[in-house]
Amino acid sequence: MNTHDFNEVVNHMKTSGFVYQGSEIYGGLANTWDFGPLGVELKQNIKNAWWKRFIQEDPNNVGIQSAILMNPNVWVASGHVGGFSDPLMDCKECKSRFRADQLIEDATHHEVSPNGWTNEEMEEFISKHEIACPKCGAKNFTPIRQFNLMFKTFQGVLEDAKSTIYLRPETAQGIFVNFKNVQRTMRKKLPFGIGQVGKSFRNEITPGNFIFRTREFEQMELEFFCKPGTDLEWFDFYCKACVQFLKDLGLSEDNIRLREHAKEELAHYSNGTSDIEYNFADPIGWGELWGIADRTDFDLKAHQTTSKQSLEYFDPETNEKYIPYVIEPSVGVERLLLALMCEAYSVEELERDSRVVLKLHPALAPYKVAVLPLSKKLSDQAMNVFEDLSKSFACTFDENQNIGKRYRRQDAIGTPYCVTIDFDTEQDGCVTVRDRDSMEQERIAISDLKQYIEDKIQF
Amino acid sequence: MNTHDFNEVVNHMKTSGFVYQGSEIYGGLANTWDFGPLGVELKQNIKNAWWKRFIQEDPNNVGIQSAILMNPNVWVASGHVGGFSDPLMDCKECKSRFRADQLIEDATHHEVSPNGWTNEEMEEFISKHEIACPKCGAKNFTPIRQFNLMFKTFQGVLEDAKSTIYLRPETAQGIFVNFKNVQRTMRKKLPFGIGQVGKSFRNEITPGNFIFRTREFEQMELEFFCKPGTDLEWFDFYCKACVQFLKDLGLSEDNIRLREHAKEELAHYSNGTSDIEYNFADPIGWGELWGIADRTDFDLKAHQTTSKQSLEYFDPETNEKYIPYVIEPSVGVERLLLALMCEAYSVEELERDSRVVLKLHPALAPYKVAVLPLSKKLSDQAMNVFEDLSKSFACTFDENQNIGKRYRRQDAIGTPYCVTIDFDTEQDGCVTVRDRDSMEQERIAISDLKQYIEDKIQF
Repeated sequence: MNTHDFNEVVNHMKTSGFVYQGSEIYGGLANTWDFGPLGVELKQNIKNAWWKRFIQEDPNNVGIQSAILMNPNVWVASGHVGGFSDPLMDCKECKSRFRADQLIEDATHHEVSPNGWTNEEMEEFISKHEIACPKCGAKNFTPIRQFNLMFKTFQGVLEDAKSTIYLRPETAQGIFVNFKNVQRTMRKKLPFGIGQVGKSFRNEITPGNFIFRTREFEQMELEFFCKPGTDLEWFDFYCKACVQFLKDLGLSEDNIRLREHAKEELAHYSNGTSDIEYNFADPIGWGELWGIADRTDFDLKAHQTTSKQSLEYFDPETNEKYIPYVIEPSVGVERLLLALMCEAYSVEELERDSRVVLKLHPALAPYKVAVLPLSKKLSDQAMNVFEDLSKSFACTFDENQNIGKRYRRQDAIGTPYCVTIDFDTEQDGCVTVRDRDSMEQERIAISDLKQYIEDKIQF
Repeated sequence: MNTHDFNEVVNHMKTSGFVYQGSEIYGGLANTWDFGPLGVELKQNIKNAWWKRFIQEDPNNVGIQSAILMNPNVWVASGHVGGFSDPLMDCKECKSRFRADQLIEDATHHEVSPNGWTNEEMEEFISKHEIACPKCGAKNFTPIRQFNLMFKTFQGVLEDAKSTIYLRPETAQGIFVNFKNVQRTMRKKLPFGIGQVGKSFRNEITPGNFIFRTREFEQMELEFFCKPGTDLEWFDFYCKACVQFLKDLGLSEDNIRLREHAKEELAHYSNGTSDIEYNFADPIGWGELWGIADRTDFDLKAHQTTSKQSLEYFDPETNEKYIPYVIEPSVGVERLLLALMCEAYSVEELERDSRVVLKLHPALAPYKVAVLPLSKKLSDQAMNVFEDLSKSFACTFDENQNIGKRYRRQDAIGTPYCVTIDFDTEQDGCVTVRDRDSMEQERIAISDLKQYIEDKIQF
């Protein structure tokens, strides 16, 4: 269990170079965040780990990067123009705006989930259970109106309906519309997957909880295409693979649970959906981390109908033509980063003091090694070590203050190894390597150093 | 020199899994492109090479990832709201729309560059030199009107001026507004740089030449902050470092030139600007690839004035406070990718046939190794090799058609090494490694294979 407070983690991230408020010197822009030097390295390491596991190491799968701006008919076909909206209600007294489904979830402490409810059902529930405005306490809401979550913009000189395009609200559709392109040019046979990592945008009315829900975010989505009838097998495979991936990255079993959607929660086309939830520490608690859905042939069929282009697959083994089924594991990079930080953050009481230590998997740590000259007289020698190691992985260099303080700084940002160059180094060609977690020190020859570290930072 | 035709390269990229038309099944969306399985790997490798050289290996520099959506005052301060616009003219006869500066450049075969000209000067030049409409030949243009290139969108429920925000037209401003955040949290001393890789958007009226100029693109920008007076030194340093980087990636000296802007071309605040140009093959010819600018304190000063937040740096060596000067090397990922493809693409006449071969630097090649079982009977054995190697780098697996055809396919997508598993492999534990460029073959023990390849694909 994560025993520390969520806000302590957030505060640590904000003050130590992981995350800054977006546009901070201008008073910010609601709920946008910028990733600092440590955050960008951690984020990239998470994306690399996902890509390695789900694309690079899997002979079935390949990646793509589709454009954020797409032909607007993509979003007609996908249902986003018609149906991708939030049910909004205003409090008539204090004019605050809420999502009706969140009002219900919050008021019932997440015991009621209005997934798939109609507006009328939600309005009735709110009135029947006398749910009050969380801001002012009044029980006087407007009826629900639907607000589309896609950001609109205009391409070209004119700002009218004809030039309206959208910022993609998900990366998945960029995969579906390229299904045939990828299958043909890469000569893929079913089953195979297409993965994508990239930005998506949702004009959320109530984003929040730091980087848990933001209007601009990065997704890592895989669409795994398979023969109808084999889909439940692959659904199961990916539920397990995603959980395994999270454990391998260091999330503990206690903080992960797989929640299978009940039949009545499922979208009409879905053969199964599971959420991997993570316990983000109090006061956030359990939250959705990774959705895995068996979407059958819903998406490809919708695009085939709207685009009038065949998205059928010719199966050379059976000489049949059919539209593949698809399994979609979809996870947000920022949210996963937040989970990993909640898990890694710890405060340890030591004999003489205490330390904050980020116990990140070495493959995820922003810096693998901190190179520390014991004295500024040793800076040049230490810089040679930095230059050599940084050809292979990200390192940092710190020559300020005493070595104890420098160790603490590296503990707090998750650097797994501190390499100290001391006055013996020139003589014996060795450095002291200190382990972040055990705090034990070992004397290692500089010539063995690169390999020593590389063996320890693999994912 | 690149002797092949530009369009041949484009065609190869479109048909072999590098690039597809964006939203193709819906007839596309003007000038958007999606990167296929090979394109996304190449693109990522380019970004990794830049990050490694300019961030990871340089003890002065760190990275960030700022949000695409920023407080709109950022763009007021930067001058983009007021001045980031194209001078548009319409042909009154055929209604085609043009950029006045491009009309002049094209009509004079790039001998006249109207950089920094006023609208009146451009109108006068066009009329005096009787420049005709490239579409219909008429000489009857409307006056110039300025069209802002930033994509607009609306955050929140209302679509009005107060909720208008922009898609960033460059990543640089996200760095400037975080100058103090980074300096403080990372305890940096001048000189130091902050780099960023990310998407930018410009509502270009005349995008074109495939991925040379697109509305949505990725930038790799470094803002290097230094003490005023040392700026020209660092400007020179980065001009050289950027050229060196391009050469190291494989661009030949013949196809690169550094064009220094003349004094009258320079923005009023700039102490110097140079473009690295690349010869993109006919009919594109020389085009701008990388801009390196000495922007003095213009940007930080503008943000300090507008935000009313101090962006001064306290210099602990001299006890002075001042606003740093900045050197900005800025390059587009897609454009660099295009240059690398133009350079790498070659058609070689062999004894019995010819081959298309992409002579990409091994570090850039989408796949480092193709694992090829000589017969389908050897597939399982070959898959073991694939699984082992793909833990370290991107590989592909191909068991279809004869080995000669498979070699050609890998040549055409730039795979530097083909590893063939044959009927002796089980006995001797060795595979045949074929080199893409020399086409020579070597027998290597499977146990040595990973290290053998890794040594060859370093950048």
